[in-house]
Amino acid sequence: MEPQKKKGAKSMTVAEEVRAKGRRAKEASYVLGGLSTEVKDRALAAMAAALEARAGEILAANAQDMAAGEAAGLTRALLDRLFLNEQRIREMAEGLRALLALPDPIGEVTGMWRRPNGLLIGRMRVPLGVVGIIYEARPNVTVDAAGLCLKTGNAVLLRGGSEAIHSNTAITRVIAAAAEAEGIPAGAIQLIETTDREAVNVMLKMRDYLDLLIPRGGAGLIRTVVENATVPVIETGVGNCHVYVDSDASPEMATAIVVNAKTQRPGVCNAMETLLVHRDIAPSWLPAVSAALTAQGVELRGCPRSRALVPAMKEATEEDWGTEYLDLVLAVKVVDGLEEAIAHINTYGTKHSEAIVTNNYTHARRFLQQVDAAAVYVNASTRFTDGYQYGFGAEIGISTQKLHARGPMGLEALTTTKFIVYGDGQVRS
Amino acid sequence: MEPQKKKGAKSMTVAEEVRAKGRRAKEASYVLGGLSTEVKDRALAAMAAALEARAGEILAANAQDMAAGEAAGLTRALLDRLFLNEQRIREMAEGLRALLALPDPIGEVTGMWRRPNGLLIGRMRVPLGVVGIIYEARPNVTVDAAGLCLKTGNAVLLRGGSEAIHSNTAITRVIAAAAEAEGIPAGAIQLIETTDREAVNVMLKMRDYLDLLIPRGGAGLIRTVVENATVPVIETGVGNCHVYVDSDASPEMATAIVVNAKTQRPGVCNAMETLLVHRDIAPSWLPAVSAALTAQGVELRGCPRSRALVPAMKEATEEDWGTEYLDLVLAVKVVDGLEEAIAHINTYGTKHSEAIVTNNYTHARRFLQQVDAAAVYVNASTRFTDGYQYGFGAEIGISTQKLHARGPMGLEALTTTKFIVYGDGQVRS
Repeated sequence: MEPQKKKGAKSMTVAEEVRAKGRRAKEASYVLGGLSTEVKDRALAAMAAALEARAGEILAANAQDMAAGEAAGLTRALLDRLFLNEQRIREMAEGLRALLALPDPIGEVTGMWRRPNGLLIGRMRVPLGVVGIIYEARPNVTVDAAGLCLKTGNAVLLRGGSEAIHSNTAITRVIAAAAEAEGIPAGAIQLIETTDREAVNVMLKMRDYLDLLIPRGGAGLIRTVVENATVPVIETGVGNCHVYVDSDASPEMATAIVVNAKTQRPGVCNAMETLLVHRDIAPSWLPAVSAALTAQGVELRGCPRSRALVPAMKEATEEDWGTEYLDLVLAVKVVDGLEEAIAHINTYGTKHSEAIVTNNYTHARRFLQQVDAAAVYVNASTRFTDGYQYGFGAEIGISTQKLHARGPMGLEALTTTKFIVYGDGQVRS
Repeated sequence: MEPQKKKGAKSMTVAEEVRAKGRRAKEASYVLGGLSTEVKDRALAAMAAALEARAGEILAANAQDMAAGEAAGLTRALLDRLFLNEQRIREMAEGLRALLALPDPIGEVTGMWRRPNGLLIGRMRVPLGVVGIIYEARPNVTVDAAGLCLKTGNAVLLRGGSEAIHSNTAITRVIAAAAEAEGIPAGAIQLIETTDREAVNVMLKMRDYLDLLIPRGGAGLIRTVVENATVPVIETGVGNCHVYVDSDASPEMATAIVVNAKTQRPGVCNAMETLLVHRDIAPSWLPAVSAALTAQGVELRGCPRSRALVPAMKEATEEDWGTEYLDLVLAVKVVDGLEEAIAHINTYGTKHSEAIVTNNYTHARRFLQQVDAAAVYVNASTRFTDGYQYGFGAEIGISTQKLHARGPMGLEALTTTKFIVYGDGQVRS
């Protein structure tokens, strides 16, 4: 009986901690929704300055996480996500400063019209309230999420991965203090500091305090959140992305795009995981691109027709077509043409980012129309699916679902609307 | 063992029926997404004509449902929702015809911009895919949902209440046949014809075939769907709506709005359930409005201060403040002023439709800003929260959640977007 009792008592404590932070966040959200853009922007600038001024303590905390991560045998891709240096801290601060230049969406009336009975109906952008973020190794998410939520008048409740707990605690301490000094209510930016997994379960069901949950991380985390949350969720980030090289692609362009999409940063969701090659261009092009990829350390796993052209490839299994490697591994398949490529992508893809390399107008148009994904590219790398690259000034995540927001999410994804109706006594007949 | 075995076998059959219809809907959705507006509009016109031409068989089916409903002792409000006559069928047909005049949102590019690296990024409206609707007694939902989904290129899978099964089956048979005769794929408009509750459980988890679930009905149905679905849900319809009569309201306007909001159609979600009255106007106004409401058959349940002014009122309990009666019952509370009214609404309301009657500019402004609801009114009845009344041409439901769509949902709520990106060899550095 004794251990079970203890476990119960501990769960209560975790639940109490999480719910207390949820309540503080909800209270803060009422104040945040009414703050002027000037106050919010001053706080963002102060948070950016504080990150740079106190970089030393953040890097010291990150070094603790990196040492623990190396000892625990994290993969190269995971360690890359976890790692911070002066430059990455500067990038986080610049991300906050970029928000200053962006228009505050809150209070915008996106339309107003008069009905025949004289009612004047308008649609106004308002904050969501409290946004919960459940994420894994990347500590920069802490800053991105806090900045975007503050700019949009939302309180944020952060739950990072245990591997990054020291980094996230240090970052949150620095930015929350800077924000409070500028008049932002305590409770606007909070981190769940326990690494107990029970905290996630509490967040998933906390409908009274959370208006939205955004999971950012691997497929397992996202599945857990989507299947168990009663709080509304935006599904993000799992990216089993493809590049299809069509028969009349420019071979040089195709090689540049494929090498970039696979190797420029393999541990992120918009990296390519499967290469599809038209059978007509495969004999002349696949050996060359394979050599270029292998030179970059990429392990290739091919279908039988690919291996006939490049015998050094390992054999791809059915499982490879559905795998997001997040590493220097690439599945390769020779296809008969556009239709097979589109069918393969719509079957195995995760509706994230998909690219065609072609010089055929009709094929480009059909690919754009028929591929079911958040972002579809002609003659460009899938690596561009990113809020900064799209010009949103920042990014809270990349939605792979179809509701509310799809693709890179900037400020507008963190708002909702309210109908405001002005009458002079109208009743319905 | 025997009965359990049978139950298992029956559940399998229900699951198989539902999943088979889901698969057909998904297949149909691929075709629907590519249909021209002309084809979709011709089908909508044919569906409207068929409803009117075959009204007799629909009314005969509805009479079966009404007889069963009366025998089962359904409330007056529920029977009102279930009832069809020639005029209500004409209204359903007119709802479809109204869609013809509306622009087709599919394919619209809502923005396109060039990035410094030359990438041209656009955002295009596309269908969601397959929409599941789980609803209760109102058979007009069958037509509304089918029309809106068809206009937006979505397949629809309908699951109505058992009380309306004959009406819904007849309506679906009529409109699906008319649509198919105009070239709409079979599978675009389908009704789950079993009344077995297991069908709902299957729909809630059918993520492979359903892109969205919209529950329309009472609080119990909506809670079941929200808490158990893994398919993305838009929460609709529970409306615990308030009218707050401020100290300097026009008494005549206040009476007209309150009587309309309570009695014009008590069984619907935008009807008023609680009246809040400023203490300064209560002595002169509350007795008069109470008499007017009582004359319309409304049962009043008041707080102690209300009952001191109108002794005939029953005593309101804590439970009354949180109840959506959907009937001729009204809770009444005297408040000290605007702040108490707003706090009461934000505590007990369901974020649906809330109204203030006032002639005070500052109070109107503060009510519009601080009340957290999908639709907030000054000097008008809450009964206007409705897609037709707002000018959307139709309505798939009234969202009381904050994600994707809030308030009355028209065509745009049934679309998502896709980023289309045109490059000429860009890679990310």
